[in-house]
Amino acid sequence: MIIVPEKEIGALLGRKESYSAVEQVFAAMASGDAYNFPVVREAIGHADALYGFKGGFDRAGMTLGLKAGGYWPNNLETHGLINHQSTVFLFDPDTGRVKAIVGGNLLTALRTAAASSVSINHLARKDAKVIGMVGAGHQATFQLRAALEQRDFEKVIGWNLHPEMLPNIEKVANEAGLPFEAVELPGLTEADVIVTITSSFEPTLLSEHVSDGTHVACMGTDTVGKQEVGADLVIRASVFTDEVAQAITLGESQHAVAAGDKAEADIHQIGAVINGTHAGRNSDDEVTLFDGTGVGLQDLAVASAVVDLAVKQGIAIEVDF
Amino acid sequence: MIIVPEKEIGALLGRKESYSAVEQVFAAMASGDAYNFPVVREAIGHADALYGFKGGFDRAGMTLGLKAGGYWPNNLETHGLINHQSTVFLFDPDTGRVKAIVGGNLLTALRTAAASSVSINHLARKDAKVIGMVGAGHQATFQLRAALEQRDFEKVIGWNLHPEMLPNIEKVANEAGLPFEAVELPGLTEADVIVTITSSFEPTLLSEHVSDGTHVACMGTDTVGKQEVGADLVIRASVFTDEVAQAITLGESQHAVAAGDKAEADIHQIGAVINGTHAGRNSDDEVTLFDGTGVGLQDLAVASAVVDLAVKQGIAIEVDF
Repeated sequence: MIIVPEKEIGALLGRKESYSAVEQVFAAMASGDAYNFPVVREAIGHADALYGFKGGFDRAGMTLGLKAGGYWPNNLETHGLINHQSTVFLFDPDTGRVKAIVGGNLLTALRTAAASSVSINHLARKDAKVIGMVGAGHQATFQLRAALEQRDFEKVIGWNLHPEMLPNIEKVANEAGLPFEAVELPGLTEADVIVTITSSFEPTLLSEHVSDGTHVACMGTDTVGKQEVGADLVIRASVFTDEVAQAITLGESQHAVAAGDKAEADIHQIGAVINGTHAGRNSDDEVTLFDGTGVGLQDLAVASAVVDLAVKQGIAIEVDF
Repeated sequence: MIIVPEKEIGALLGRKESYSAVEQVFAAMASGDAYNFPVVREAIGHADALYGFKGGFDRAGMTLGLKAGGYWPNNLETHGLINHQSTVFLFDPDTGRVKAIVGGNLLTALRTAAASSVSINHLARKDAKVIGMVGAGHQATFQLRAALEQRDFEKVIGWNLHPEMLPNIEKVANEAGLPFEAVELPGLTEADVIVTITSSFEPTLLSEHVSDGTHVACMGTDTVGKQEVGADLVIRASVFTDEVAQAITLGESQHAVAAGDKAEADIHQIGAVINGTHAGRNSDDEVTLFDGTGVGLQDLAVASAVVDLAVKQGIAIEVDF
């Protein structure tokens, strides 16, 4: 059994490897080679925690296992630990024996950033110049860094409910040599790509804030009741997602679908675009929207990449189990 | 993070500790301190494997986590490994961090044996003398060993579809200094306690094979469609179980309940008997039946006991995770 502790992940897995792992597993999901298991998510009635399991199997990548963990809202204050805690467990699909234990905290940030990055690569206009951020928390910095690698962006603009957090993303923009501008929501019409990464329960970005031809990656909605963008934008856009079943139940598409304003059949897997079985963007005027809900297979994919790298670099801890 | 490899379990955990752990968690389930999460069970479409997760949280024992693994039917032939493979992962309920990884194969056998043993202790007549076994495979030896400790048994009788396997349980009986007798099914009327441990899809033990006053522990049915005993016996008996929801859907009670011949309200948690909130056996003539379906909390309970013992004895492997 191989162990890769949380503290080793940062030096092992870059954005490039995360991108490849996530792109491959999205492709495998669309071709029927990979599927996610039902998600278990429980409010355990202790420490206000949400705990659960996201598992799956990728026959193409021969990756089987789960991410376990959740959200402990008092961790930082009470224990000096981050509030999201997760661990990935990989199994040998040939024998059912446990194969690897990998710290899942940084992996979760990297695979979420990789997902919007994959969507930008496959759905944004090639000539996109301005990227807009809705949200400026810790995860927003990961999303922006990964997004900037996909097009020759010339400018970053951003909005956040609490404007005092905008320097988080301004710093990332400046590190990439790009200017940053704080805008009001209507100012986002300047953007060619928009990434939303908030934990909002009310629509923030409305259709009127989005110009024709924009690609919007909605990365914050992963729960029933959450909502980042107006249903009018979901209705207007060509919608793609990691997993259709999750998008319509707990993703950004849940509201338009529940209202009967968007058909499930009109929501497509991003993997189909990667595989070339769906054309993706049809014109320079089309608004495309990626509903990134987050699936267990993403976690397994990046964890599997980490294990390979850790073994190759002699960092993996091996335990006779 | 603490690791207890599979090979260490046998020397660490005895039947006594298994019994205590399982009895305590059954009690916690009945008092509302512990609950099991929805079970994930998937035919993954590779190596004919069934794979999944059984999780739960015990607030009384502060045990949180899951058993992951499953059934790889070709393991023995192809890889020289046992076909049932599982691993238990324990988490810290205060922080969500992974706490321990414990080999789950022997633990599963021990906790299943402990469950019928708990039921015998709390439901069989005190003067039980003859124990009958239906099933004589590897797991039957665990069930019998644990059962023999609960009463002053004087004789073991047994039946198996393939009689050539009966020496498995004869050996256990003889080791305990007891005579063994192979019987036909009607011969089981001699038994005061009967344990069924087969993977049958047809009823084997019928009501006519069971005398008044007998306690029957049905341990083999854990899947929709499986059945060890006649529905007539379930209807006749006072039925107890580890978890009512599982008993009526995938346990021995599924058939009588589906047919409308047994009410869910008439199936009681064994934990209520342990806690003294249900009287258990009412008379020496009553037939009691324990429907042991197997829950994740049992695995967590014995794994947690193993971790404590491994730490105390200096056997635990500690990894900075």
